[in-house]
Amino acid sequence: MKIQHCDTILRAAWLVTQDNDRRVIENAGVAIADGRVLAAGPWDEISSQYQGKELLPGRELLLMPGLINAHTHAPMTLFRGLADDLPLMEWLHDYVFPVEQKHTPETVRLGALLACAEMTRFGVTAFCDMHFMAAHVAEAAEQSGLRAMLGEALFGFPNPSYQTFDQGFAKAEALCETYRDHPRITPTVAPHAVYTTTPEMLERTWSLAESSNTLWVIHLAETTTETAECIEKFGARPLAYLDSIGCIGPRTMLAHGVDLNTEEMDRLAQAGATVVHCPKSNMKLASGVAPVPEMSRRGVQTALGTDGAASNNTLGMFTEMRFAALLHKAHTLDATVMDAQSVLDMATCDGARALGMTAGAGTIAPGAPADIIALDLTRPNLRPCYNPISHAVYAAEGGEVCLTMVDGEVLYKDGAFTRIDYPALLNEVRGLGAWVRQQSGRNA
Amino acid sequence: MKIQHCDTILRAAWLVTQDNDRRVIENAGVAIADGRVLAAGPWDEISSQYQGKELLPGRELLLMPGLINAHTHAPMTLFRGLADDLPLMEWLHDYVFPVEQKHTPETVRLGALLACAEMTRFGVTAFCDMHFMAAHVAEAAEQSGLRAMLGEALFGFPNPSYQTFDQGFAKAEALCETYRDHPRITPTVAPHAVYTTTPEMLERTWSLAESSNTLWVIHLAETTTETAECIEKFGARPLAYLDSIGCIGPRTMLAHGVDLNTEEMDRLAQAGATVVHCPKSNMKLASGVAPVPEMSRRGVQTALGTDGAASNNTLGMFTEMRFAALLHKAHTLDATVMDAQSVLDMATCDGARALGMTAGAGTIAPGAPADIIALDLTRPNLRPCYNPISHAVYAAEGGEVCLTMVDGEVLYKDGAFTRIDYPALLNEVRGLGAWVRQQSGRNA
Ligand SMILES: [Zn+2]
Ligand SMILES: [Zn+2]
Repeated sequence: MKIQHCDTILRAAWLVTQDNDRRVIENAGVAIADGRVLAAGPWDEISSQYQGKELLPGRELLLMPGLINAHTHAPMTLFRGLADDLPLMEWLHDYVFPVEQKHTPETVRLGALLACAEMTRFGVTAFCDMHFMAAHVAEAAEQSGLRAMLGEALFGFPNPSYQTFDQGFAKAEALCETYRDHPRITPTVAPHAVYTTTPEMLERTWSLAESSNTLWVIHLAETTTETAECIEKFGARPLAYLDSIGCIGPRTMLAHGVDLNTEEMDRLAQAGATVVHCPKSNMKLASGVAPVPEMSRRGVQTALGTDGAASNNTLGMFTEMRFAALLHKAHTLDATVMDAQSVLDMATCDGARALGMTAGAGTIAPGAPADIIALDLTRPNLRPCYNPISHAVYAAEGGEVCLTMVDGEVLYKDGAFTRIDYPALLNEVRGLGAWVRQQSGRNA
Repeated sequence: MKIQHCDTILRAAWLVTQDNDRRVIENAGVAIADGRVLAAGPWDEISSQYQGKELLPGRELLLMPGLINAHTHAPMTLFRGLADDLPLMEWLHDYVFPVEQKHTPETVRLGALLACAEMTRFGVTAFCDMHFMAAHVAEAAEQSGLRAMLGEALFGFPNPSYQTFDQGFAKAEALCETYRDHPRITPTVAPHAVYTTTPEMLERTWSLAESSNTLWVIHLAETTTETAECIEKFGARPLAYLDSIGCIGPRTMLAHGVDLNTEEMDRLAQAGATVVHCPKSNMKLASGVAPVPEMSRRGVQTALGTDGAASNNTLGMFTEMRFAALLHKAHTLDATVMDAQSVLDMATCDGARALGMTAGAGTIAPGAPADIIALDLTRPNLRPCYNPISHAVYAAEGGEVCLTMVDGEVLYKDGAFTRIDYPALLNEVRGLGAWVRQQSGRNA
């Protein structure tokens, strides 16, 4: 048999492929070349057919696709833990919006860079972000090496990024243009919510998403209050309102989807739209429980996201998966719903499909981009191991991640970031923390 | 001012004391001597008044009391992830009980030692355990250095520990005798549940708890099914049944307490009994949601526990705290219930009081046992830090723990265990994993 050369070889005690057959292979290997998976299979096969530099040799690893955080607001890391235990509207209007008004391009960039460091450290390889001054989020994402889908958050009122909607819209257009063909950054069009925009604004954003062929991302149906206000203001429930102005289709990505009825789910399934489930944020803000098991039964595409670190308070997708799995069991009183495999699917292959990522994304299969993470299986909480999918969803905390790679490029390994100067970032964030305290009147 | 000598000094970027005033001090210090806290306060005061060996100097640490896991079954770590996504009775009867019947003293000891390693690693300094062959759990706990309250699980049917209840009872008596005056191990009396015992058995266990002056620990009101069966079999709801045979008092510690009505809560409050809340286990098995906010309003003492690793699947109390905080917000649709401080109280000072631990346990205050943990605040998910209590409950994953001490003795520091030969333990657990697979028919 002819030996093939490759760039990198990884050996796994357990390999979770998330391929079409959901193969899980004990004692396995992955060969990587040109940023893509060449082959994944039993170690004997891989080691006899491929030759390349072995990363982390002699370790006991769980290899799996990098996790996809389908909804976040990266710069919000700067407000982590600033205000907790409050309902959504009070939290948003009394704490988040005021301090967000103080953002500058530099604080947006640094908050996003901290978010990228956190996600990289905890095994996220791709994220979908919505924030104003998105160009500076993009700057951070580019530096970090993570895959990112991001859009300028568009509100109908002034913010540090723009005074008028027209100015904001111009920024959204510019972002679409700048990142049209970027290998890792993909632009989206991202109106904030139905309660912060007008129908005309939403129509314009939809046209831009169509002409730029991007995702159209919005917060929707997060609370029953939102529904009531939408009915009062626009005479329809949020989804019907969007539908009436032509904003429902395969490019529609709705964050939250808590207050959705079965007719609305059927409409979303039929349209090929996606709902991003954010269980921890919804729980923390007591927004309600998104009917995800019912959505799945009705064929709605779902993905999983952390939302921002001000309402979560982390961007770790391992704990997010666990919350998704356990919340619905408690809510439906059915221990069989949202099993580990379904939840992992939301955070990997299904999330990738929903986000319109390249073929194979969210899997470890030949031809897929090598967006791979490794977990150190010698941690006590991962011993013994009978089923690595169970461990990924129910036992891993995220800190076990010892390798994060995107396109075959190592971004994090054993405590060290390759692209981010983490000590320098810590120093800058230290200063920003003091600044946030001043701005928010929260002095120690 | 005269300088006092002490054994150990710890410096904290943030100190969470959990003392009576719930003081949180930025830039603080703790002086420790003879296993106890001598002083805790601003760094300037501590460093000018005390001289001793500084542990982890130059680090940016969050110091807090070690967490108390008030309900677990340590040896169940061996069955972690063996069966998930199943309802309680199916999970228990088809998976857990059969494989548990294969336990030997050595598997119990090793499973418990793995649990102790996991808890030590993730910042737990004390735990309350119920398992058969408890003497071997005690052996592991003693080796690990953790503080442990443990009892022989008493069932009305044979198991690997005993053939008859009398034999099991004799083991419980022996355990009470052996650990009567042990510095870190405290015996409990632990009948398993109302559905696995008879009234006569429960009465005998209660007498033993009284004569030995121990806690009396039982699973109670975990599901509505249990209630229905109890009514059918004993003509009363579980709590009334216990009450009728004289088993409700300050030494009563009920694990779960999911199906409790308000009259029952009032009875528990009046009796000074404790309910141990196990949110993740209850969610995973879809057992229901324990009405903890209502219990607190009615003055019921509550503590927090992980339950066994077969239904959780970790023994990490940081994620357990987060689940406790978020579950009730989602369940009551009130974002203000179970705030970070209340949840931390359950896992520290309140848990200690409920477990009848020594005065000051669960706090960092003069005279308290020095059961202290340190978290590395330079982890990205803990940046920035405005409120360390928020971080402990909402942001920490547990892996940030870099120091765990009990009675001032370091049990874990920066990846290394002082009392457990972790590589040797990993090897033994590797072998046990293969053995469990065989026993359970789960071959790869
Ligand atoms: Zn959001
Ligand atoms: Zn239990």
